[in-house]
Amino acid sequence: MTAASRIEHDFLGERAIPAEAYYGIQTLRALENFHITGIPLKAEPLFVQALAFVKKGAALANRDLGVLDPKLAGYIAQACDRVMTGELDDQFLTDMIQGGAGTSVNMNANEVIANVALELMGKQKGQYEFCHPNNHVNCSQSTNDAYPTAFRIALNNKLQSYRDALALLADAFAAKGEEFRNVLKMGRTQLQDAVPMSMGDEFKAFATNLREELLRIDDSRRLISEINMGATAIGTRVNAPEGYAELVTEHLRDITGLELVLAGDLIEATYDTGAYVQLSGVLKRTAVKLSKICNDLRLLSSGPRTGINEINLPPLQPGSSIMPGKVNPVIPEVVNQTAFYVIGADLTVTMAAEAGQLQLNVMEPVISFALFTSISYMTNACHTLREKCVVGITANARHAEDLVRNSVGIVTQLNPVLGYETSAEIAREALKTGKSVYQIAVVERQLLSQAKWDEIFTFENLIRPHFIQ
Amino acid sequence: MTAASRIEHDFLGERAIPAEAYYGIQTLRALENFHITGIPLKAEPLFVQALAFVKKGAALANRDLGVLDPKLAGYIAQACDRVMTGELDDQFLTDMIQGGAGTSVNMNANEVIANVALELMGKQKGQYEFCHPNNHVNCSQSTNDAYPTAFRIALNNKLQSYRDALALLADAFAAKGEEFRNVLKMGRTQLQDAVPMSMGDEFKAFATNLREELLRIDDSRRLISEINMGATAIGTRVNAPEGYAELVTEHLRDITGLELVLAGDLIEATYDTGAYVQLSGVLKRTAVKLSKICNDLRLLSSGPRTGINEINLPPLQPGSSIMPGKVNPVIPEVVNQTAFYVIGADLTVTMAAEAGQLQLNVMEPVISFALFTSISYMTNACHTLREKCVVGITANARHAEDLVRNSVGIVTQLNPVLGYETSAEIAREALKTGKSVYQIAVVERQLLSQAKWDEIFTFENLIRPHFIQ
Amino acid sequence: MTAASRIEHDFLGERAIPAEAYYGIQTLRALENFHITGIPLKAEPLFVQALAFVKKGAALANRDLGVLDPKLAGYIAQACDRVMTGELDDQFLTDMIQGGAGTSVNMNANEVIANVALELMGKQKGQYEFCHPNNHVNCSQSTNDAYPTAFRIALNNKLQSYRDALALLADAFAAKGEEFRNVLKMGRTQLQDAVPMSMGDEFKAFATNLREELLRIDDSRRLISEINMGATAIGTRVNAPEGYAELVTEHLRDITGLELVLAGDLIEATYDTGAYVQLSGVLKRTAVKLSKICNDLRLLSSGPRTGINEINLPPLQPGSSIMPGKVNPVIPEVVNQTAFYVIGADLTVTMAAEAGQLQLNVMEPVISFALFTSISYMTNACHTLREKCVVGITANARHAEDLVRNSVGIVTQLNPVLGYETSAEIAREALKTGKSVYQIAVVERQLLSQAKWDEIFTFENLIRPHFIQ
Amino acid sequence: MTAASRIEHDFLGERAIPAEAYYGIQTLRALENFHITGIPLKAEPLFVQALAFVKKGAALANRDLGVLDPKLAGYIAQACDRVMTGELDDQFLTDMIQGGAGTSVNMNANEVIANVALELMGKQKGQYEFCHPNNHVNCSQSTNDAYPTAFRIALNNKLQSYRDALALLADAFAAKGEEFRNVLKMGRTQLQDAVPMSMGDEFKAFATNLREELLRIDDSRRLISEINMGATAIGTRVNAPEGYAELVTEHLRDITGLELVLAGDLIEATYDTGAYVQLSGVLKRTAVKLSKICNDLRLLSSGPRTGINEINLPPLQPGSSIMPGKVNPVIPEVVNQTAFYVIGADLTVTMAAEAGQLQLNVMEPVISFALFTSISYMTNACHTLREKCVVGITANARHAEDLVRNSVGIVTQLNPVLGYETSAEIAREALKTGKSVYQIAVVERQLLSQAKWDEIFTFENLIRPHFIQ
Repeated sequence: MTAASRIEHDFLGERAIPAEAYYGIQTLRALENFHITGIPLKAEPLFVQALAFVKKGAALANRDLGVLDPKLAGYIAQACDRVMTGELDDQFLTDMIQGGAGTSVNMNANEVIANVALELMGKQKGQYEFCHPNNHVNCSQSTNDAYPTAFRIALNNKLQSYRDALALLADAFAAKGEEFRNVLKMGRTQLQDAVPMSMGDEFKAFATNLREELLRIDDSRRLISEINMGATAIGTRVNAPEGYAELVTEHLRDITGLELVLAGDLIEATYDTGAYVQLSGVLKRTAVKLSKICNDLRLLSSGPRTGINEINLPPLQPGSSIMPGKVNPVIPEVVNQTAFYVIGADLTVTMAAEAGQLQLNVMEPVISFALFTSISYMTNACHTLREKCVVGITANARHAEDLVRNSVGIVTQLNPVLGYETSAEIAREALKTGKSVYQIAVVERQLLSQAKWDEIFTFENLIRPHFIQ
Repeated sequence: MTAASRIEHDFLGERAIPAEAYYGIQTLRALENFHITGIPLKAEPLFVQALAFVKKGAALANRDLGVLDPKLAGYIAQACDRVMTGELDDQFLTDMIQGGAGTSVNMNANEVIANVALELMGKQKGQYEFCHPNNHVNCSQSTNDAYPTAFRIALNNKLQSYRDALALLADAFAAKGEEFRNVLKMGRTQLQDAVPMSMGDEFKAFATNLREELLRIDDSRRLISEINMGATAIGTRVNAPEGYAELVTEHLRDITGLELVLAGDLIEATYDTGAYVQLSGVLKRTAVKLSKICNDLRLLSSGPRTGINEINLPPLQPGSSIMPGKVNPVIPEVVNQTAFYVIGADLTVTMAAEAGQLQLNVMEPVISFALFTSISYMTNACHTLREKCVVGITANARHAEDLVRNSVGIVTQLNPVLGYETSAEIAREALKTGKSVYQIAVVERQLLSQAKWDEIFTFENLIRPHFIQ
Repeated sequence: MTAASRIEHDFLGERAIPAEAYYGIQTLRALENFHITGIPLKAEPLFVQALAFVKKGAALANRDLGVLDPKLAGYIAQACDRVMTGELDDQFLTDMIQGGAGTSVNMNANEVIANVALELMGKQKGQYEFCHPNNHVNCSQSTNDAYPTAFRIALNNKLQSYRDALALLADAFAAKGEEFRNVLKMGRTQLQDAVPMSMGDEFKAFATNLREELLRIDDSRRLISEINMGATAIGTRVNAPEGYAELVTEHLRDITGLELVLAGDLIEATYDTGAYVQLSGVLKRTAVKLSKICNDLRLLSSGPRTGINEINLPPLQPGSSIMPGKVNPVIPEVVNQTAFYVIGADLTVTMAAEAGQLQLNVMEPVISFALFTSISYMTNACHTLREKCVVGITANARHAEDLVRNSVGIVTQLNPVLGYETSAEIAREALKTGKSVYQIAVVERQLLSQAKWDEIFTFENLIRPHFIQ
Repeated sequence: MTAASRIEHDFLGERAIPAEAYYGIQTLRALENFHITGIPLKAEPLFVQALAFVKKGAALANRDLGVLDPKLAGYIAQACDRVMTGELDDQFLTDMIQGGAGTSVNMNANEVIANVALELMGKQKGQYEFCHPNNHVNCSQSTNDAYPTAFRIALNNKLQSYRDALALLADAFAAKGEEFRNVLKMGRTQLQDAVPMSMGDEFKAFATNLREELLRIDDSRRLISEINMGATAIGTRVNAPEGYAELVTEHLRDITGLELVLAGDLIEATYDTGAYVQLSGVLKRTAVKLSKICNDLRLLSSGPRTGINEINLPPLQPGSSIMPGKVNPVIPEVVNQTAFYVIGADLTVTMAAEAGQLQLNVMEPVISFALFTSISYMTNACHTLREKCVVGITANARHAEDLVRNSVGIVTQLNPVLGYETSAEIAREALKTGKSVYQIAVVERQLLSQAKWDEIFTFENLIRPHFIQ
């Protein structure tokens, strides 16, 4: 032990801790044991904050129930307040993927809070007889309730910004829907010309598609608002005083402002990862939708001369190191890739959830890593897609309408008048000869009058068809 | 053309159809084109039935709106009634995985219904001038609304039996929870001895875990109750009469008894597969949970001499062709494997959903194949697990309690009295020397009195701990 | 027991077996216990055949080593010969997904072969004292070596037809490559116009892409040719006579004509599923490639008027129930969907492999189900894609060349002469004004002479560029 | 433009670049456009190095073929040498997931190298007329050949350290195999007691299992050694001088020391991602195996009092914040989680590969992100598992042997002597009554003599059974 360190011990032995460190021996052991991602806990500040929420809530409940000295509880709560501000984030160093079901994360929080409290009490760091990471900070808790509760609170808060980003993106699509209201374009099914439509409706549908996700996010937030504080080790409430679980939940509701609910079956809640699987599934579903939308944006802007070219994405950077003037749909592309990441991460969550055994799921750290990462990337992707792409999209209205007028697909509009078989006949001839539908139906075969044709093929009826028999 | 066949044509040419066949040329083409799974549409009778529901609803709405002759509509409806009974299932032969976004399935239904209607009208099969598959049976419809609507109705009905099977399974676990209420056993976290618990609570938690899934299934059923009838080809309602979409939805509600709702944005609804992704995610989540539970059952029944052996699964078959007397947990094993299948199928759904382009998702047939199969397998797995395993599980109560009494894990109960560090000390000595916690704590170190020990370690306090300081 | 049944027993009790059944009590129990897929073992006749191979090989080796009476061994071998022909396939009824790690499949084979042998000996079915499913047919074996060995033999044979189908498909693409050698078309990257190329090279690349898969299939076949016969229960060779493992492998090489190899580490080989994971990965890789190719075929044939329309896929069926004349790329679509199925099945294999525990992987039945199904579907998809689509593809050569001539992408060819920045300048002006590259570069800006232009932009240099500075 | 910046332009306009920056305008645009992961290119120094390899190889080949001035080529090569050392890593800032198919990464390298070369020439950064990122550094290249070539070189080098880590881990298991050679233990199948074995063989099998992976890694390295330099934009070699592709490949072989091979079909090679899918599949397979092994280590060390407890993992940290003395298998747990991450990342690669279109796969950046991350994590996991766990594992030999002696599973050894049915009878009685196999078989039923029993049940014959009839 040098001047620059203090000695701490646990039941496995002694270790020197850097004097300035607020973390303690168990965090040190975690740092030595886990080197997988190189990404430390502090990379997710909302999680550090949530750990402080949980520890404060526990301290207050323990105080109220007389199992923690009110003064000591006060110091712990004050220490938690400091951690919440983010000023001690650099003390949260445990690798995002660890063994031990979160014990290292929980102990990292317990140790930092204990040492901050000790300083507030005018003691030295490490004088745990006055404020002990396990006996006091972790009082009436286990990793198995404190860790998932903090995780759920952090997720809940993180989902708020994600939801906001997604809502803004949907709004941007809706605004384009309004803007493109009177752009006539060909609808396509199976990449084949189908029937005409409004480009505005196409973009509005993107908005609808994404807005449905907001409701699903709300579902997820409800599910992850169920917590198991007071369950302690395996849900039997062993070592927690009577009434503690209910009380700490109440305190946590106050502290976080979230609608947290105590799980009805604490044994089940202690090992269950269903809410994470559900949330991951919701993220995946949105990723699938975003990927589909970006695929569409890339198709619609394909060309400029040998593709569909109905819309222009804002040019952001030269598209090629060799092909001059090429501009690529780089933003939809990066969003597609983000989606693939998120879909992969959902599989990670699935496997981790399946691997739970008996009274605990020990794989929760990789679940937290996957979910935090996915939510961050999705949030970034929503902002990027909106700011760098959607708001700047323009329509090639003239070209889009030309494609419609030149198409065979408009023959469908003749169905109610001529029947499916005659219409099919016309279509076949048009495709074979290159003639227009009008030429065949009206001029050559005289299957309907010019007046009827004009009634059916107005711009208004093409873009927003009405039933004409 | 022989006596045994009739000639039909479409815009690609003519083909001979077996005289007795109710299906027509387009079904025949599908039979020639698609040979992937070898599993025909009729393998899913609820889907055939749902197609008949849809076609009947459309006929009635078309009649009401005057676009279909009332008599003809009546014959079509009557034909649909016959198809609903299942008596024409053997006419639905299209391979479960097909190209064409369901067109072949839709035309299979249109053709069968047209020909049944023709016979009801006293006509010959194939006399489509009187009742045409496209012009009449498919009137005001497109594959792109009729197919997904039928699919959703079929899913809805299929989910009902699945939900029932799952609820019964949860009940069976709950009953065991009651039965094992007073069986004391060791709780385990990370496969390491943790703290004691009631075996009843462990089984009750399985029930809780699965009952949450019932609510998720209900969510899914709500989402898939949104239909897009009247959207026709791409959601613009082209070729559908005014008011048709709303009216046909109403008829379908009556016919099916389901709470079907017309989608608010028909453009979006026509390509969106979000509800399938959500449903698949729910199935996956339940599969993950079932797999975890079956892993637990296998762990708890491991042994009989060199494993945990707290419970006995009913012996169903000799477990080995070489090891006499061996009995294996074959039912949990088959459920694990079913879960892996369902998790894989969820990926199939995910990829198919992501591959949708522009105004339609052409990959819906493989989505339907994956979902129908997964629901069937899960339903079977629930029944199998309940009947062949759960209801026959017995507890080795004596052995389970012996394990607890002999464990070091009970030292946790001393925490509030002795503190974490002293308790850890005792644990370490117990593990090193093989001595019991009692021997060290009470007899040798005299850290607590016999009376205090007795207060803490009653059966009741071990199985359902109360806080004792 | 009625006239129509015989009584059999195992150590769990007695059961009546239909008199005509060749299977016995353990198969009956499996039929009662496993109802998941409804797809019986006989759906995979190569597996039934392979079980007969294995049992015959074992009988011969047992005979050679003196642990089986030569006459009895002869009857068993003869019974196996009959099973190999497929005539007893309808006796193999165990559901494809079962618990018990294949014990039911192995016993199904043991029982059928024993009873066939008994009849050959002039005995009654069920007189197992003369030929016993376990003691004689299963002699020196365990499910844990017999089952995976049969599985691997069946896979090996099944892969042969798959490989053939894939090779034919690659050949069909290569033939199109030759046919389209002189079709000039625009190459596209990121769906944007890039530089010109030969359509022949595009199709030849599909062939190259798939031919690489043939080598990967060969790798897989080598890996699955490693067997563990003689390992018995867990790889210790318990109850197998000295030299048996090597001898039975030799017999199996003779019987099957495959290059089977005995694993070097039988303990490992008994639980290892690595070869299945590898094979599944190879199937997945090919599925990914097929899906990409089919995506391309759908893009290239998109239109006909509002898409790329460089190629025509053979029209196979009317594409819509509402849009007359529409023809869809139904074959690429069904292949895409097959690919999604196979990718999902790979996940099933992955999870099943990961779930192996200690000396055995009990999840092998679902692995076999997934692999057999995937190989079947892929084989079907290869044949379908070739016969129904690739061989009939035609090029719209004139249109494809027009797209090139009209494009801005040809500006890249000016890079070595004018430099990247000047070329980019020209491109930008062309896109903005709609002018051609030629107009700007030669006529207006006179950046290069007509002669130089003509040298660079010959058909030959566009389709197969040479370096011109 | 301030003193602290210089102005650069591309065809989209002008931007100010920090004066000290070696990167240029296109890198700046990428920094503005892509904010998804926050993880910059420099996090993968082997990739930066490989970009320098590629650019140097190209410069030398361009020099040899006379398309680049020898002096200028020399400066570029010298600049590449500096980048290779890692000293300019902090200039490589593009986010790991980007749109544009790697164009931003390629331009980042082109710009940094150009500016370093300019300084070596005594010019100012940004004086691109003397050394231009596109015209000179990127000469005869496109992103579409330079990027994947650099990626493949980086992967190749990265796989070397991974392979080493995995080989060391396998060796550690093999050493334990030797150490535990004479530890008798129960083998288990389906978590049920099976037959005895040597613990040494169990650990040796882990070594065998992992050593097979080394061969698969070698396969992957061969596949990714195929490069497409000289293909330029889409594989037609447009703008690359005659003989360039072959020559640059030769230079790259010299520079890297790797057995790089030029692809035979450059059109195919430019879009094909098959080698990445294969490599990802190999990583996944190893992850599956590591996960299975870690599951086993956790099972075998379960307890200490209420589980299997045959082995002890080295205690690394207190296992619980509430349960004193608890020590958990934290290292296997973290490896399991790493495996789940890698399996998820494989799905990301799969989806990205499937999303390739026409002449390029634009999703390569997320493939590189997934593969680099997976290889890093796997390498870390191998080292961690070896150092922190495997080398310190000890056997509870006495307990393991006791479990065997006390088991019923040893009855299998009586099969060849007593037959399957009699042995099953004994087993059944033993399980029912709790009696030992010996008691029933020898003492009570006298089915075999004491001498025969002694011959069969020697330690040697239990641990390494010989055939005794």
